[in-house]
Amino acid sequence: MPSEAPPPGAPGTLRPGGRTARTRAAVRDAVLAGLVEHGYPGLTIEYVAEHSGVHKTTLYRRWGGVEGLVADALDFAGEDSWTPPDTGSLEGDLRALALEIVETFTDPASAAAPTAFIAAAFQSDRAADALRGFYAERFARCAPLIERAVERGEAPPATDAGAVVRAVSAPLFLRLFITREPLDAAAADQAAGAALAAIRAGAHASPG
Amino acid sequence: MPSEAPPPGAPGTLRPGGRTARTRAAVRDAVLAGLVEHGYPGLTIEYVAEHSGVHKTTLYRRWGGVEGLVADALDFAGEDSWTPPDTGSLEGDLRALALEIVETFTDPASAAAPTAFIAAAFQSDRAADALRGFYAERFARCAPLIERAVERGEAPPATDAGAVVRAVSAPLFLRLFITREPLDAAAADQAAGAALAAIRAGAHASPG
Repeated sequence: MPSEAPPPGAPGTLRPGGRTARTRAAVRDAVLAGLVEHGYPGLTIEYVAEHSGVHKTTLYRRWGGVEGLVADALDFAGEDSWTPPDTGSLEGDLRALALEIVETFTDPASAAAPTAFIAAAFQSDRAADALRGFYAERFARCAPLIERAVERGEAPPATDAGAVVRAVSAPLFLRLFITREPLDAAAADQAAGAALAAIRAGAHASPG
Repeated sequence: MPSEAPPPGAPGTLRPGGRTARTRAAVRDAVLAGLVEHGYPGLTIEYVAEHSGVHKTTLYRRWGGVEGLVADALDFAGEDSWTPPDTGSLEGDLRALALEIVETFTDPASAAAPTAFIAAAFQSDRAADALRGFYAERFARCAPLIERAVERGEAPPATDAGAVVRAVSAPLFLRLFITREPLDAAAADQAAGAALAAIRAGAHASPG
């Protein structure tokens, strides 16, 4: 995350409240740094104030406290422009999606913030709510991936995009955060292959 | 967990070191209570000493500190007599296995300890190692479930029990601890159904 202010006209800065948006970004960066450095139990308003340059009174007034700061940082993380892979085949898309998760979480630099959010949700209901919202929105963005597969005749028409994305990602998150097993490209391929077999058998159809 | 000492001859008490085993059980109970009440970051040697009746110096000498206490409590949890379901069919076994996970984690009393262990692994490498060992041993216990299915012709001969158990449990743990979505019997059936379809397609074959 560059520490300079973005140039005028950079995406997301020209909306009304540009200064507010920059303050929010600085606060978000400080929250992420604090979560990565100390974890949720060690994150303090003092840390965020010091690292964002925003006064403690402003932080309390606008975010309420540490829980609100973490929830807003997660909402902010969901405002990116991520779209699912589009490789031309369902199998290629699922493998690319799985590999993206493996690459994110095996690189300590990119793994730190999402790992800290997942950990924070164990201790904060507001962080858990924000995480649920984040993933619901991510799953919704994957609908076109399945629409394309249905059009190409690679998946049954009733296939549920959310069920597919959960199926591809679940074995990887299980290894990462539950069974604490190593994660590699082979695990990504296995997850994508199993999801593909279940899709073809109609096991990821929408309810109703 | 009953607080009375088990009667002489109860399973696990007649081995050499019965008194040691009872001390270990008392310490384990205190560690679980502390994890559930305060989480890993708030667990202290003082709490464990007070709630187990075992002196702090003994705790430090035998377990080294909080990390060692948590790791040993997890090792202890793995010394139970759990076996996988045996319903007479692969589909029945997978559904029962998934439902067992849902029931464990939707009842606050039974969910508290395993949830606390999973949370502790975010902050302690020794807890993460112990969790990895716990699940590896659990997966190994599921081998007979797959052997029976192969004998009945319900699964290809090379099916990997660990891959199957990961496949059934992963979507449930994803909902519980990553996407923070509600968990119910329908989610259990969906997880079992998708795993079954992937098994039949040979997507959970052992490597090599």
